[in-house]
Amino acid sequence: MKSVIEQMNLFFDPPSVAVIGASRKIMKAGHVIFKNFVESKRRGVFKGELYPVNPYEKQILGFRCYPSITEIPGEVELIVIVVPADVVPEIIADAAVKGVKAAVIISGGFGEVGNHELEEQITATARNAGIRVLGPNCLGVYDCETGVDMLFLPETKVLTTGDEVVATPRPMSGPIAIVTQSGAFGVSALDYLAGKELGVSKFVSFGNKCDVDESEMLRYLLHDERTRVILLYVESIDAGREFMEVAEEVTTQKPIVALKLGKTKAGARAALSHTGAIAGSDRVYDSAFKQSGVIRVRNMEEFFDAGKALAFQPPAAGNNIAVITDAGGPGIMAIDECQSSGVNVKRFSEETIRKFEELKKKGEIPAFATNLNPLDLTGSVTSEMFKAGTKILLDDPEIYGVIALGLHHVPALQEDFVDMIAELAQKYTKPVVACAIGETEMALYIRSRFDKLRIPAYFSPEDAARAMAALVKYGEYLRKRGCFEDYVRQFQKIATIRGMVA
Amino acid sequence: MKSVIEQMNLFFDPPSVAVIGASRKIMKAGHVIFKNFVESKRRGVFKGELYPVNPYEKQILGFRCYPSITEIPGEVELIVIVVPADVVPEIIADAAVKGVKAAVIISGGFGEVGNHELEEQITATARNAGIRVLGPNCLGVYDCETGVDMLFLPETKVLTTGDEVVATPRPMSGPIAIVTQSGAFGVSALDYLAGKELGVSKFVSFGNKCDVDESEMLRYLLHDERTRVILLYVESIDAGREFMEVAEEVTTQKPIVALKLGKTKAGARAALSHTGAIAGSDRVYDSAFKQSGVIRVRNMEEFFDAGKALAFQPPAAGNNIAVITDAGGPGIMAIDECQSSGVNVKRFSEETIRKFEELKKKGEIPAFATNLNPLDLTGSVTSEMFKAGTKILLDDPEIYGVIALGLHHVPALQEDFVDMIAELAQKYTKPVVACAIGETEMALYIRSRFDKLRIPAYFSPEDAARAMAALVKYGEYLRKRGCFEDYVRQFQKIATIRGMVA
Repeated sequence: MKSVIEQMNLFFDPPSVAVIGASRKIMKAGHVIFKNFVESKRRGVFKGELYPVNPYEKQILGFRCYPSITEIPGEVELIVIVVPADVVPEIIADAAVKGVKAAVIISGGFGEVGNHELEEQITATARNAGIRVLGPNCLGVYDCETGVDMLFLPETKVLTTGDEVVATPRPMSGPIAIVTQSGAFGVSALDYLAGKELGVSKFVSFGNKCDVDESEMLRYLLHDERTRVILLYVESIDAGREFMEVAEEVTTQKPIVALKLGKTKAGARAALSHTGAIAGSDRVYDSAFKQSGVIRVRNMEEFFDAGKALAFQPPAAGNNIAVITDAGGPGIMAIDECQSSGVNVKRFSEETIRKFEELKKKGEIPAFATNLNPLDLTGSVTSEMFKAGTKILLDDPEIYGVIALGLHHVPALQEDFVDMIAELAQKYTKPVVACAIGETEMALYIRSRFDKLRIPAYFSPEDAARAMAALVKYGEYLRKRGCFEDYVRQFQKIATIRGMVA
Repeated sequence: MKSVIEQMNLFFDPPSVAVIGASRKIMKAGHVIFKNFVESKRRGVFKGELYPVNPYEKQILGFRCYPSITEIPGEVELIVIVVPADVVPEIIADAAVKGVKAAVIISGGFGEVGNHELEEQITATARNAGIRVLGPNCLGVYDCETGVDMLFLPETKVLTTGDEVVATPRPMSGPIAIVTQSGAFGVSALDYLAGKELGVSKFVSFGNKCDVDESEMLRYLLHDERTRVILLYVESIDAGREFMEVAEEVTTQKPIVALKLGKTKAGARAALSHTGAIAGSDRVYDSAFKQSGVIRVRNMEEFFDAGKALAFQPPAAGNNIAVITDAGGPGIMAIDECQSSGVNVKRFSEETIRKFEELKKKGEIPAFATNLNPLDLTGSVTSEMFKAGTKILLDDPEIYGVIALGLHHVPALQEDFVDMIAELAQKYTKPVVACAIGETEMALYIRSRFDKLRIPAYFSPEDAARAMAALVKYGEYLRKRGCFEDYVRQFQKIATIRGMVA
């Protein structure tokens, strides 16, 4: 009997895979999925054996086609099923005969539309045969490093104008894993993470989760060295106790950020009609997440924002944060949001204020700078001043993280302050997050440059503050569990090895 | 004596302007501001007389330079002051002699750094001479249609790589006015609105507001036909009663969206050290805004999001909204956020459900579509189906607005659904807002296309829901005030005249 890790690994890195319902018709899901594997194999990324199964075809994309799994000569460890729901029981029966180890059922038409009996039937057959099942009604797996891509959604679309555009991008490798109950939300996340150049370590959509559920995936991802942060989207968690056990184990080593829907009465009703999920009392989820160290976010934006923060930066060793800015208003926004999110933004210490006053005397920061928290360097700031101010904050032992709001509009702030801050931040294990407001060239450049240097950058001061709140909360949790130092040591090591720090 | 409107108009459309502290040195604020006027004049946009004032120069950019205002031969209605604070009293005294009507004091170094006496002195001199003053410590005015641009922040910057990039863009004309206490936040807003191609009708930064304040600006903007929505950023409002009176008048005809900082204790302390503003009890502001129909938002993102919604769409005639989606998860997110924001999302009526069931029978929407609210058309949706579903929702007399979540990743949804929805929405006076998730080509195209067709589009379902909440709340307020029909009639008229509806 394989371990859970080995079982789950079959979905992400199968030695052999058969696509049941592979098709020559380019609009069909069975075509897109099979073709994804073929192209991965031709590029040398997917290294397993590959078999199309379709009784009506002889050959697909140069591969000999088999009428059923049982007729495939070699071993088949994983099958991907893309046939109508009513044919699935027969496929699972064949798979049992063949000795298949794992099956992904992409097809819908089961519990989510009331066909509970059909779903129970295939679940029982698979269980008896020892076949692990992902789905049904899911998008399956995407892993750019093993070349497994079960997404049937076309990578590009042709607009009515005739232009071809990227529609469902396949992100590059990155530190964030996506575990999602909703397939549609899952692809949206891929679209987001690809566009923002953040990348994805592993993607899994488990749909109706008749067998494999979020807990097993979390356990698997704990051991996946490419995954730094797990973003978990759920509408319901059925095996609550198991989830909490696994989550408690995972969160001492990797942060889990959860977006759990159905918070309100109307939302819970909608969730019920979506996946048949009984959303359950929201407060129960809240306390379960809290107890097991899962960082719960309120909405989609925070989901991605917190993920980026935790992927790029270490957690905070204490709850007191400094804000540095060259713009008073945005500085206040960050302070307001910190306090609303439970992040302390105390008045700076006498010692730190004295250091600022010294810099003022030497003309190294503007004479009118205010320095109570935020440190507001005003519109006269230069890149060097921004760096000098940040250094004093990072040196303060009572300050555990810095929010850098460098609004580039002021005349003397050059874009080189971004590299200066990133270089400085590397010398400390305190988290630094940034914000640049604006949607034209320089603002976009600054945010993207910060991100490239692994200082997570946000478009509003409040987003930056909430991202910092995630780093503060996670730090508090790790300290409570007594594993803060271990986590930070491991984080630094991985960041260095994988070139995550520029 | 000129009316307040005429007085305020001098700041936005002066027949003659002198720039005090105009300079030949390109890094100086006095150069940038004077050059902005020169270029506007050369392009034929700024039509007033223009004079540089600087005792050390004979000529600047081809204009004869005057040693003081009093030596300018013609009339001078407006002066823009860009000289050190200690010289300002003398300038104001000269301006009084010359009979200047209005002055913008860009210079800082007054109340905001503790120089209250100096500020009081210039305020008194100006008041005695009947000179209206904007500032000090402000960015002044930007109005692309009259060519008035007092922003001293360079439009482009040269990066250390040698590339020139847009740094502080000057937005095109649009329906949104910006009234801001923080100059830095003001430019950030310009950067945002320019990049998102939303445009700006008028921009005014009033800084320390020693004379002209937000109330007078609101009154002025009420009569500005290019302004559809006023975005107001304040740290404190001193003349509260006056503000409420004006706001009550304005909000029956134009929405005011307010971002008021210093919500928390730490934020209030930061506001105090920023502009010397005593933030006051946040609850007092809350109830003042509510009573006068001002829509208060929680953060920067909502500020822009609500502004766009109110600029593009009519308010809702009642509090019940429908969500249409092709993606279950995002549908639930929108429903959750609606309910959290006080927007009703009731189960659809029997009649509407019957219509959906008919469409299902005819195969005009997918058989597995769920139709309780949201209407979830599932991944099998086509553009025509999205349109058919939206039509039924808009036809329902109990539904007062629609949130359209068209996730484009599904195979059969083409980008033409955007135009279909926009065309359909024009036949109703119900607000429609949209969401497309993703950051790659097709997602960006869809959001931008929706915006161009004046259906405000957002990157997350929650943002779309909160934008709809602003339309619902504003509708409720207008009905309470008995002016809902008038507002909508006027909104439709302006939208048509100014080509705001595609």
